[in-house]
Amino acid sequence: MTILVSEVGPRDGLQSVKSIMPIEAKKAWVSAEAAAGVREIEVGSFVPAKLLPQLADTAELVKYARTIPGLTVAVLVPNLKGAEAAVEAGVHKITIPLSVSETHSLRNVRRTHAQMLDEVKGIVALLRSLPKDRRPKFEGGLSTAFGCTLEGLIPADKVVALAESLMTAGCDEIGLSDTTGYANPSQIRELVRRVLSTVGNHALAGLHLHNTRGLGLTNVLAGIEVGITTFDSSLGGLGGCPFAPGASGNIVTEDLVFMLEAMGLTTGINLTKLIEVRGILREALPSEELYGFTPDAGLPLGFKQGPV
Amino acid sequence: MTILVSEVGPRDGLQSVKSIMPIEAKKAWVSAEAAAGVREIEVGSFVPAKLLPQLADTAELVKYARTIPGLTVAVLVPNLKGAEAAVEAGVHKITIPLSVSETHSLRNVRRTHAQMLDEVKGIVALLRSLPKDRRPKFEGGLSTAFGCTLEGLIPADKVVALAESLMTAGCDEIGLSDTTGYANPSQIRELVRRVLSTVGNHALAGLHLHNTRGLGLTNVLAGIEVGITTFDSSLGGLGGCPFAPGASGNIVTEDLVFMLEAMGLTTGINLTKLIEVRGILREALPSEELYGFTPDAGLPLGFKQGPV
Repeated sequence: MTILVSEVGPRDGLQSVKSIMPIEAKKAWVSAEAAAGVREIEVGSFVPAKLLPQLADTAELVKYARTIPGLTVAVLVPNLKGAEAAVEAGVHKITIPLSVSETHSLRNVRRTHAQMLDEVKGIVALLRSLPKDRRPKFEGGLSTAFGCTLEGLIPADKVVALAESLMTAGCDEIGLSDTTGYANPSQIRELVRRVLSTVGNHALAGLHLHNTRGLGLTNVLAGIEVGITTFDSSLGGLGGCPFAPGASGNIVTEDLVFMLEAMGLTTGINLTKLIEVRGILREALPSEELYGFTPDAGLPLGFKQGPV
Repeated sequence: MTILVSEVGPRDGLQSVKSIMPIEAKKAWVSAEAAAGVREIEVGSFVPAKLLPQLADTAELVKYARTIPGLTVAVLVPNLKGAEAAVEAGVHKITIPLSVSETHSLRNVRRTHAQMLDEVKGIVALLRSLPKDRRPKFEGGLSTAFGCTLEGLIPADKVVALAESLMTAGCDEIGLSDTTGYANPSQIRELVRRVLSTVGNHALAGLHLHNTRGLGLTNVLAGIEVGITTFDSSLGGLGGCPFAPGASGNIVTEDLVFMLEAMGLTTGINLTKLIEVRGILREALPSEELYGFTPDAGLPLGFKQGPV
């Protein structure tokens, strides 16, 4: 079985880091991960530079990343204006986050669910006006889907209803994000099954999981068991959501790839090369902590990975 | 479903820590964990004090721990002499480790498999000479069962054969230890199924897992899926095997209990009380690092755990 590991470090990692990574380091990072075999990278967000100066060069990075053969170049956008900039830059994939916790949505982007769905419809109209071969894939990313630091438990019914609304509004697919690191394996299995049975097997893009309470990889395992084949992660575990208090820690790409390859699943990623990419982060962000158990411990003696 | 979380910190944790924890702190630790709902604790090893001075007070700790109602008091012994001391102290459970990697066995205890099986037989004879109500349970703990830092891959056939030899020699049950943190969920499922089908469902005591490469809890999840209901862990993630180079990090009791309770499984352990026990470790071992994601992040808003 093949699993798509989607690197989100250049977006989700860098947005929560105070230092601004120079564009040349970002290019080196994206290019080194692609060379290690990573096939999808979320390179940035199209948000006002004054909100996230760390990602102000997203358009330039998109243009560079598009020149790398075989790489899917993804970005996050908060609204129609961001989507216009993303299309202009030539991205392959756009994700708009919609927080299932309306309290979190208001706190994060100052928008209700209804207002967010209007943005989604505006983006769908924009994308449908493009020729098919220039039309990016459009994902609705349901954040706080497994719990919210402001609202607490999030009823599965709400997640399922919003997934349906996003598909009705014209999204190509849905993603589920454990923004707050609240998810557990049983909940993953249950919610994924419910969303799949509502939107269909091909409309669930994948899972975006955090390791806040140490369950990130257990949740990946549970996701694989119920048919998920795409997982977001961040090199060195850089990042998290700066607007969800207490939330931190994307799952670490290196540990994720180690687990998948050790289990005999295929990622197409060369683990040794992947671990070397950390050097670029260490050099460009010397004051940031990098996480990951596998890079510290090294690969097991005799470890062999699948084809890369 | 009920899961038995067996705390091994006072043995596996302390043996790899340079500082010697005062006996009063050990008593406070054991007693506070029992009060939080932990039902089995491995309180020490019966090894020569000059090898592990950290555990020289094991007999005294056993005597104290036996006064705590409902607590199973377990120890590790390397040989017959250790087992005699364990019986004398009045333990409820004895585990003898046998490393599936003979290279590791020679390096660790300077004994071949045949020599270790002789020790096992000697211990069985000792235990069978005791009246039944004073006879501790006897586990053969297969260490390096999932790989060895000296030998690399360990063939499953070797693990199965040694499990059989231990049962034939008279052990009550078998445990599987990922001493080196090499295991992955697929391997856990496969090896557990094979050992279960060889020794029978009631003879596999549980899994002792390390988090060296971040897969500790994923391996627990895989173990639960194939019927394992007992897992070792260490409060604050203290410890590891000092003889397996590169091996470190027992799975963290707090994160394990969080995962199990979040999944709706029953541990009988009060998570808030459990996390408070870290204070005893911090005070008694101020220079040791404590691990754990859940204690750092706190419990999710609205989190409710099962009956304790």
